[in-house]
Amino acid sequence: MFSKRGCSHCTFQNCPVRPYAKRKPNTKQADCIYDCLDLWLVKWAGLLGDGHQLHGISTFSFQTWLSQARQSKDYALPNSSWSQGMMDLYSRFLEMCKDGTWKRIPSYTWLYRSTQLNLKKSLKLTSEKERKETRLFPRNMDTEGVGFEYAMFLNPSEKRMVCLFQPGPYLEGHPGFAHGGSTATIIDSTIGGCAIFVAGRVMTANLSINYRNPIPLGSVVLVDSKVDQVEGRKVFLSCQVRSIDGQTLHAEATALFIRLDSTKSLQQQMSSQ
Amino acid sequence: MFSKRGCSHCTFQNCPVRPYAKRKPNTKQADCIYDCLDLWLVKWAGLLGDGHQLHGISTFSFQTWLSQARQSKDYALPNSSWSQGMMDLYSRFLEMCKDGTWKRIPSYTWLYRSTQLNLKKSLKLTSEKERKETRLFPRNMDTEGVGFEYAMFLNPSEKRMVCLFQPGPYLEGHPGFAHGGSTATIIDSTIGGCAIFVAGRVMTANLSINYRNPIPLGSVVLVDSKVDQVEGRKVFLSCQVRSIDGQTLHAEATALFIRLDSTKSLQQQMSSQ
Repeated sequence: MFSKRGCSHCTFQNCPVRPYAKRKPNTKQADCIYDCLDLWLVKWAGLLGDGHQLHGISTFSFQTWLSQARQSKDYALPNSSWSQGMMDLYSRFLEMCKDGTWKRIPSYTWLYRSTQLNLKKSLKLTSEKERKETRLFPRNMDTEGVGFEYAMFLNPSEKRMVCLFQPGPYLEGHPGFAHGGSTATIIDSTIGGCAIFVAGRVMTANLSINYRNPIPLGSVVLVDSKVDQVEGRKVFLSCQVRSIDGQTLHAEATALFIRLDSTKSLQQQMSSQ
Repeated sequence: MFSKRGCSHCTFQNCPVRPYAKRKPNTKQADCIYDCLDLWLVKWAGLLGDGHQLHGISTFSFQTWLSQARQSKDYALPNSSWSQGMMDLYSRFLEMCKDGTWKRIPSYTWLYRSTQLNLKKSLKLTSEKERKETRLFPRNMDTEGVGFEYAMFLNPSEKRMVCLFQPGPYLEGHPGFAHGGSTATIIDSTIGGCAIFVAGRVMTANLSINYRNPIPLGSVVLVDSKVDQVEGRKVFLSCQVRSIDGQTLHAEATALFIRLDSTKSLQQQMSSQ
């Protein structure tokens, strides 16, 4: 599945990368899904519809999506709230990106924007602006440093995704420590990103977390996830959350993700697993 | 453990309720932990230290805590963002509180405030105000309706905690649906509240979630958790997340919580389980 023999091996059933690659004459078809950030955005956004019906969103416009991504702020870049430990770890992974072993994954406040997604009726919010706007859960804070600060890197050949995570003071559970739900959120996001890389559009089916040591707010941890096995539509993954020095194991997790069939609704697929 | 024979059966090793009950002559000792909101606040805040060392917080002042709780906004009360479905469900449970079968659980942006909790050094935030302030993860939003809107009710005799949950647009994962991490967060909070009721100060050790049907943003679901078994310091619980009409099972979960020993740090206890 990770063969570089060409886009015909892409895990997207209706790969939006292929037509795009054709428009870039200098792109080797064999490497097209690894070659440029734009294409990574597509791969990363594996949840996108692809012309089929996806719970009420009738059509997917790749060009529109790409245009939105280019205009949006990438939240996975360093900001002034990042601690020295976070910056050092980020620089280390960025260095490893130079030879193509690792890829930095951009991150936005959304996975897919659609004006057709009618939330107005179901959501009774305080202002017109908020009524329209949705935000990706781990990117929903306006102020830097108070919530989830994180950046992800992917190692395609190892089928591995890591996430540098600095939990802010608004993620509190026990006094001074990250809430178990915030740990679950960053694990789900990282392990989910890894599953997307293998299977395209996926959905979490099971997530099991063993909490070993609480994560202090303001510290930096490394969420390290990998694909263990793929069986048909099922992708099995595992994950460890460790301190930067590797000495403290904060949490371990296993997960099962299901590859989605773009011709069925999310509900249909999740209830029939 | 749920016997109403008296405070001597309270699961708190050094129960702060007993001295308080003595100061209230009209409180039946047998029912004192169920009788008034203040005492519920104590029980609910089972994570509090009790005079022992708790990861750097050296002393617990029950009076200070109670005073803070009285002055704080209770976020588990209805606000204008709640949908009719949420209001109806809330009213139904409130009605069941009248005979004492159920108890409404208040909710704040914190579990325990301490000026001794020095986060300044480890957190590098943008303003002095934010540097000092921590917030309970599911209560970290300023605007009503955009994040977690929820209210919990406890049924002591059934060892059962339910949570009415309306996910807002800032909890998005798949377009239009709640992020798996936000579902994990509300499950951890509800099931954790149930564990606190049985065991006092607890910490999540394992959380395993089967995601069955995605939760639409703006919908209302009922998170229903109960204690299955208690073995020494271990509390085993299970949980279901269903639509209001009960027809759609959104998620199922099991969890293991560990009762904390107030003489040891969190880290010591979590690593030695």
